[in-house]
Amino acid sequence: MPVHLPPPDPATLHPIPGVRLGTTAAGIRKADRKDLTVMLLDPCASVAGVFTRNRCAAAPVQLCRQHLAHSAAVRALLVNTGTANAGTGETGLANALRTCEALAQRVGIAAEAVLPFSTGVILEPLPVDRVVAGLDAAIADAQPDHWFDAAQAIMTTDTVPKAFSSSATIDGAAVHATGICKGAGMIHPNMATMLGFLATDACIAPALLPTLVRELADASFHRITVDGDTSTNDSFVLIATHRAHHTPIDSLHSPAGQALWGLLLPVAQRLAQAIVRDGEGATKYITVQVDGGRNAAECKQVAQAIARSPLVKTAFFASDPNLGRILCAVGNGGIEDLDAATVDVYLDDVHVVQHGGRHPAYREQDGQRVMKQSEITVRVDLHRGGASETVWTTDLSHDYVSINADYRS
Amino acid sequence: MPVHLPPPDPATLHPIPGVRLGTTAAGIRKADRKDLTVMLLDPCASVAGVFTRNRCAAAPVQLCRQHLAHSAAVRALLVNTGTANAGTGETGLANALRTCEALAQRVGIAAEAVLPFSTGVILEPLPVDRVVAGLDAAIADAQPDHWFDAAQAIMTTDTVPKAFSSSATIDGAAVHATGICKGAGMIHPNMATMLGFLATDACIAPALLPTLVRELADASFHRITVDGDTSTNDSFVLIATHRAHHTPIDSLHSPAGQALWGLLLPVAQRLAQAIVRDGEGATKYITVQVDGGRNAAECKQVAQAIARSPLVKTAFFASDPNLGRILCAVGNGGIEDLDAATVDVYLDDVHVVQHGGRHPAYREQDGQRVMKQSEITVRVDLHRGGASETVWTTDLSHDYVSINADYRS
Repeated sequence: MPVHLPPPDPATLHPIPGVRLGTTAAGIRKADRKDLTVMLLDPCASVAGVFTRNRCAAAPVQLCRQHLAHSAAVRALLVNTGTANAGTGETGLANALRTCEALAQRVGIAAEAVLPFSTGVILEPLPVDRVVAGLDAAIADAQPDHWFDAAQAIMTTDTVPKAFSSSATIDGAAVHATGICKGAGMIHPNMATMLGFLATDACIAPALLPTLVRELADASFHRITVDGDTSTNDSFVLIATHRAHHTPIDSLHSPAGQALWGLLLPVAQRLAQAIVRDGEGATKYITVQVDGGRNAAECKQVAQAIARSPLVKTAFFASDPNLGRILCAVGNGGIEDLDAATVDVYLDDVHVVQHGGRHPAYREQDGQRVMKQSEITVRVDLHRGGASETVWTTDLSHDYVSINADYRS
Repeated sequence: MPVHLPPPDPATLHPIPGVRLGTTAAGIRKADRKDLTVMLLDPCASVAGVFTRNRCAAAPVQLCRQHLAHSAAVRALLVNTGTANAGTGETGLANALRTCEALAQRVGIAAEAVLPFSTGVILEPLPVDRVVAGLDAAIADAQPDHWFDAAQAIMTTDTVPKAFSSSATIDGAAVHATGICKGAGMIHPNMATMLGFLATDACIAPALLPTLVRELADASFHRITVDGDTSTNDSFVLIATHRAHHTPIDSLHSPAGQALWGLLLPVAQRLAQAIVRDGEGATKYITVQVDGGRNAAECKQVAQAIARSPLVKTAFFASDPNLGRILCAVGNGGIEDLDAATVDVYLDDVHVVQHGGRHPAYREQDGQRVMKQSEITVRVDLHRGGASETVWTTDLSHDYVSINADYRS
């Protein structure tokens, strides 16, 4: 059961002029399940992406990097679920390229203009023939208003499709952004097993796009963790179709750049948070905020140490205010010169730890009250500087073990 | 149910001349349960220890460090279970010191000659009065042959007491070593919630002791992980009583030094492995060996990435050869310039991954056969150097979640 994550209403998802999406059931791993998606882009569109830092990156990730580096323009994205095409060596690369070629040929573009994406089981071959056999149906299905269908077709252990839109006015022009993503386990994005696609019709200088996608990922997908495992296939792609009627934006620091950030960030963050809310076995949605660090990096380290701790996560599952586990995780955050005597910990409004020890006024029943909630904020104040960072995570439940012990079988 | 870990036969545990152990039920957290242990050392004994690198180290750990730095000789160790006296601030330090003073006064030594150890729930005060009230009974119980009782009295979520002995002949003299430890969860030693005590009657130059305890910990407790959480209270202490009739050993590189290492290492390793075998919810005992690294550090990083991965651990629990998860973990091991195409993975004798991809001859039924065993070795060959490292870990089961959702409640 996802935590406060209703499925999106398809009517709330803006089409993005210049982007068409088509899906089909290609039978890649399971029959009668949409598992193949094509996204077709107009020639003027610009694309940038960030990809997993796992050193065993999947074949499609390697090919995306190559195509983005060498291709003049990306014209299509091809996404399959069922198999990750990771741990597949040279054959995996050749297979991914064959699917790009097949799509390219059908829509009259170059193979390098196609970005391939796979998600599913690692170490199993991509069934190229089934992917290719599904392409005609997916292409025939391509429409600007098929975001909801695409969000469904990229799901694996997800229980809810994830899609959000937002709108803004930039230089008097109406601008839109719509994004979809998938992911529920193996989530510890460094660049998550998440795939995220965010499109906007804003006019963005192509040179700004790589910076923008990196900063968006840092402020969204890089702030989530479910189980601490960074997948081989994580990819987040930003598509700008430049169809809105405003002057191209070449800096995030201009008023128009700020408006663009305000347009895109909420979609990226809600997509990332949706992955956590639908995290495998999640019964709680936890926000971990670390304040008072010397820099953002050390705040994030501590936040991640808390968010990754199995003991903290099982305590949240049990609604047990065994809050010493949070303090223990703070101590494991890798700040070598941390003075434990300056650490404060809050559970929502309850001050639990003061000066590194139990707050004198802390009462177990207050901790218990907050722990029973399905949404909880843990706030740590390190009192050693002005920096802050926030990470979103889940609890660790029996269902996480069941899902991952059963997945594949 | 621990994995192949019968309780020790008390008759196999050698007394160590110069060490007496006494236990009692002091009612620290639960009634009618042995929870207080004293270890009384002869004046000639030497002691060295390694302690948690968690920056929120417990009060007793802080006091141990102080006493080891300033005291001429350690004469007694005091261990309680039930509460960790961690996250207790200045009061915690004062409480730990009060218990040292009370023991010191009763046996006629200085307070700084006492090393205190606590294990249990974090963020709760040490009930000093109950500890002090139990001291007379524990001291009266002190005998050289009470190692088994002490191993029982230091347990928390452990299901089996952990104690081992070994013997050697050094320079013609019979020498003995006996060790005990506790720990089952919050185990990721970076010194584990482990406490380990190893005593020998070997004659060891005091200057060698700190090096020896560090090298022993590196070769044993630092190679285990259950859940990836480093506790606030991890401590491993080596006691040498110098009663054996041989020349003092001042180097590990001499023949006598090698014999000493051969005496102590098996006890330290079996203690560390016993913690894994009794790991919370463990149904399997996994050895992760990484070969072919440029140096031991990168081998250990990769081994730990595999051993910590919840997805790898749940696959072991399910006996599901979802072995791509192992390859994914290798890629998350932090080796920035790792070439995935050189990675080989073996499951016992089964060659699963070759050159970064599925081995052509690999058959699912072979992987399945190994995965069903209760003891499994994962071997990774990085093919980039001559270094190797080994880490021991468990699977991640429903019982881990149950134990940690219920502990304390």
